[in-house]
Amino acid sequence: MTKMFAFGLGIACLNNKNEYLDTYFPQPLHGLSGELSELLGKEVEEGVCVLSPARFKKIATIISEHTGEESNAQAAFLQESSGNSKGIQLIAVRLSSDHTIQSVPEAYLKLHLFSHCLCLPNTLNLEGLFQQLPTVCWTNQGPVDPDEIDNRLLGARLNNEHLELHSVDKFPRMTNYVVPSGVRIADASRVRLGAYLGTGCTVMHAGFVNFNAGALGPNMIEGRISQGVIMGAHSDLGGSASTQGTLSGGGKLINSIGENCLIGANAGTGIPLGDRCTIEAGLYVTAGTLVEVMDTVNNTSRVVKARELAGISDLLFIRHSQTGKVICRSNSAAIELNDILHSNN
Amino acid sequence: MTKMFAFGLGIACLNNKNEYLDTYFPQPLHGLSGELSELLGKEVEEGVCVLSPARFKKIATIISEHTGEESNAQAAFLQESSGNSKGIQLIAVRLSSDHTIQSVPEAYLKLHLFSHCLCLPNTLNLEGLFQQLPTVCWTNQGPVDPDEIDNRLLGARLNNEHLELHSVDKFPRMTNYVVPSGVRIADASRVRLGAYLGTGCTVMHAGFVNFNAGALGPNMIEGRISQGVIMGAHSDLGGSASTQGTLSGGGKLINSIGENCLIGANAGTGIPLGDRCTIEAGLYVTAGTLVEVMDTVNNTSRVVKARELAGISDLLFIRHSQTGKVICRSNSAAIELNDILHSNN
Amino acid sequence: MTKMFAFGLGIACLNNKNEYLDTYFPQPLHGLSGELSELLGKEVEEGVCVLSPARFKKIATIISEHTGEESNAQAAFLQESSGNSKGIQLIAVRLSSDHTIQSVPEAYLKLHLFSHCLCLPNTLNLEGLFQQLPTVCWTNQGPVDPDEIDNRLLGARLNNEHLELHSVDKFPRMTNYVVPSGVRIADASRVRLGAYLGTGCTVMHAGFVNFNAGALGPNMIEGRISQGVIMGAHSDLGGSASTQGTLSGGGKLINSIGENCLIGANAGTGIPLGDRCTIEAGLYVTAGTLVEVMDTVNNTSRVVKARELAGISDLLFIRHSQTGKVICRSNSAAIELNDILHSNN
Repeated sequence: MTKMFAFGLGIACLNNKNEYLDTYFPQPLHGLSGELSELLGKEVEEGVCVLSPARFKKIATIISEHTGEESNAQAAFLQESSGNSKGIQLIAVRLSSDHTIQSVPEAYLKLHLFSHCLCLPNTLNLEGLFQQLPTVCWTNQGPVDPDEIDNRLLGARLNNEHLELHSVDKFPRMTNYVVPSGVRIADASRVRLGAYLGTGCTVMHAGFVNFNAGALGPNMIEGRISQGVIMGAHSDLGGSASTQGTLSGGGKLINSIGENCLIGANAGTGIPLGDRCTIEAGLYVTAGTLVEVMDTVNNTSRVVKARELAGISDLLFIRHSQTGKVICRSNSAAIELNDILHSNN
Repeated sequence: MTKMFAFGLGIACLNNKNEYLDTYFPQPLHGLSGELSELLGKEVEEGVCVLSPARFKKIATIISEHTGEESNAQAAFLQESSGNSKGIQLIAVRLSSDHTIQSVPEAYLKLHLFSHCLCLPNTLNLEGLFQQLPTVCWTNQGPVDPDEIDNRLLGARLNNEHLELHSVDKFPRMTNYVVPSGVRIADASRVRLGAYLGTGCTVMHAGFVNFNAGALGPNMIEGRISQGVIMGAHSDLGGSASTQGTLSGGGKLINSIGENCLIGANAGTGIPLGDRCTIEAGLYVTAGTLVEVMDTVNNTSRVVKARELAGISDLLFIRHSQTGKVICRSNSAAIELNDILHSNN
Repeated sequence: MTKMFAFGLGIACLNNKNEYLDTYFPQPLHGLSGELSELLGKEVEEGVCVLSPARFKKIATIISEHTGEESNAQAAFLQESSGNSKGIQLIAVRLSSDHTIQSVPEAYLKLHLFSHCLCLPNTLNLEGLFQQLPTVCWTNQGPVDPDEIDNRLLGARLNNEHLELHSVDKFPRMTNYVVPSGVRIADASRVRLGAYLGTGCTVMHAGFVNFNAGALGPNMIEGRISQGVIMGAHSDLGGSASTQGTLSGGGKLINSIGENCLIGANAGTGIPLGDRCTIEAGLYVTAGTLVEVMDTVNNTSRVVKARELAGISDLLFIRHSQTGKVICRSNSAAIELNDILHSNN
């Protein structure tokens, strides 16, 4: 009967003022309905709820019984969560609907939904995300509030301990929270929590995937997937290749890359690409780039702004190395290309 | 009466031969004068001075009383420094003037002055820096001398411990020594100690800031700020954008970026830019690039080498995507552009 | 009499199923012959051999006596290996010939041979490498099997420990296994085990070196050295510069960079370069790029595909910034260039 947008049992880290720094959700749930939704609705109120170990264990048991995943993280919960919490806080987050983010744990729950591949980029309400997420010093001793870091650094030195800061950011690296199956990430510091990486994705050392962005898999990602950008299956993003987050100068059109595309090394795109498109190495196609579109069937051509080619499949973009012209040829079938070529005549 | 260039109470790490590997200064001081300068001058001699915990505490008290920063790191010093030193060394570095660097602690003190935003890039005498700084293995167990690393790696393995090397370099990452307020650094391994990052700077994952280089803030830094380069307020450096450290082929002119500039993704500049300049994504402007300068008022143009445009404001650089010409237009007011356009007539 | 391709005493990490995750070889040996080869051949069988501490110590002694390196890692072995193994496994790997890789330790031994500069890239049989190497979560607590990582992450959180994942990859970072002498690596996460870095190499923060790839030294590496690519002495690879692993569209020719070359920032090459070649910043030369080759002696020119210039020395590649033409001029002596220019007349 009752539906629930999302639910998560989490473990939160706090600063010295007992404010949230982050929350880890080993098994976030999305789109609950029926009995499980009702049971959880009775157990905890809307929003963030601090739990005793006993209550935490009870809810974990409910979830485990309904999801049937005995061998997973939830099972470990049952055995271990009875211990004391030693500075961490056990919580539940219940969200009836996908409303504006109102707390740190809610923000983290939504980021987990992306990284667990439960929600595609651009499908969640992320209003309030930047306002709620605190900037955190991510260290080898866990998250530390920036206001507390000077004393921690000094204390570590005086005790001849080593405090290593990996990042000072609102977003932690994904892999300290979620390791998707069938994924390789050569340098984990370059994939933010909230990235979506489908099975078969490899993110190489120069690759980068922002939150609310990703690749459906399998993909080879050696370039940068900006916030809001999603890449289809079997597409490759070359080394240091760039994807503009939104169509600069071209309104609010969301950028994306279709299936079986190849963006060459050091190339870039400011327009969404259809399937089977290629941009040669070193060429940056912005929305305003003037492109000579060549119809290889009729042997005619026409110059358009790249934004007019947004989303079309089977395109090959090159810069002619003797004329300097940016040219678009049909990668294989010229049908769609014919359309754009003649539609504006 | 007496002036002092710089002073720092520091904690140094040593190798097995008791040579310095690094020094951490929680509260470096710059440009001291008056009573504080005189008191410190009496307490310690010029250069590097090894201190007992008692002497260290005494000097810390003097500084704390004069700077009035009770709540800061110096206060913690007072409480904690009475303990034994366990393999670290307490030192003071006193520099009357900005002379050639003669020791590891002096080098680290100057790098701290940059990163604490006490001195702008290109304002300190860095002679001797590379000669004095040792190459260090920066590990999760602190700094290790490269000559000692093989035995440490082997020992760790045999004890089933994990020794992680983050870097083998003369410069450590900044954030293990200084975390400037109001700054985000997505991947801390990409900002060297000695970087200058003003409030409001965000360094993204593909960003990089060298020592003696930086941004005044606020800035979005997704590209590489080379040694000696400084970027003005409200300027953005796009993903993988490059700044050449000096004007290649163009003498010793120091490269820089003014205020409100935008260097697009995968772009680059080999010339200093004035304010409100834009380089489109993917275009690399070197000092020798031939640029067609267009005067949009008089509708005339002229071809110059980019180095002639060094430091001029309100310029927009693009490569025309149908002719291959690199073109410079006035970004808004054409006044300065008119000047260069007509000055060489 | 008997020759042996390679031998290594190693320390291996295992997952919960006792499968190999990695192996560390402090002193790998290559190309053994004579008495040492015979002695080792008697001690252990071909392939991977699990050893007791006593046997491990005996073999270490044999090696130490023959290599005469008392002060090195092998000496430490002798003192420490008598202790218990605490979850690690002591092994020997003996390979009579350079056959297809058949186990994890064999794969790691070959990667060590590269990184110890005992074998140049492209000189080892790497068949079976990807099949044998498991994907591993590389953490601050050592290697963890991806199947075990969820429980480890959860357990760490509940115990308020911090488990940090640095990488999820088949290849670990080189510096946790080998730190070549005279090398600086600014960000160790960007050099894979199996990289070859000769003395005097500096890998900057945007640099990257794959396995079976490298630089002979001395070199400045700020760009990406792809698998199979090797760079000669005194060559510089600029920031984010790209080297294509194989000649795309041009067959199986292995890409490489000669001596005294300069590949500018954000540039790239898809063809092997001879000595003293320069590619200007921002220019990507692919095998198919049409290049106007200018003979500055005879003042003639000719357009060829870049692949025809593969391996030629003394070339300067630029894109003319007013015509958009990619041009190749002789960097100094025009002799070789004259050859290619006239050979196809």
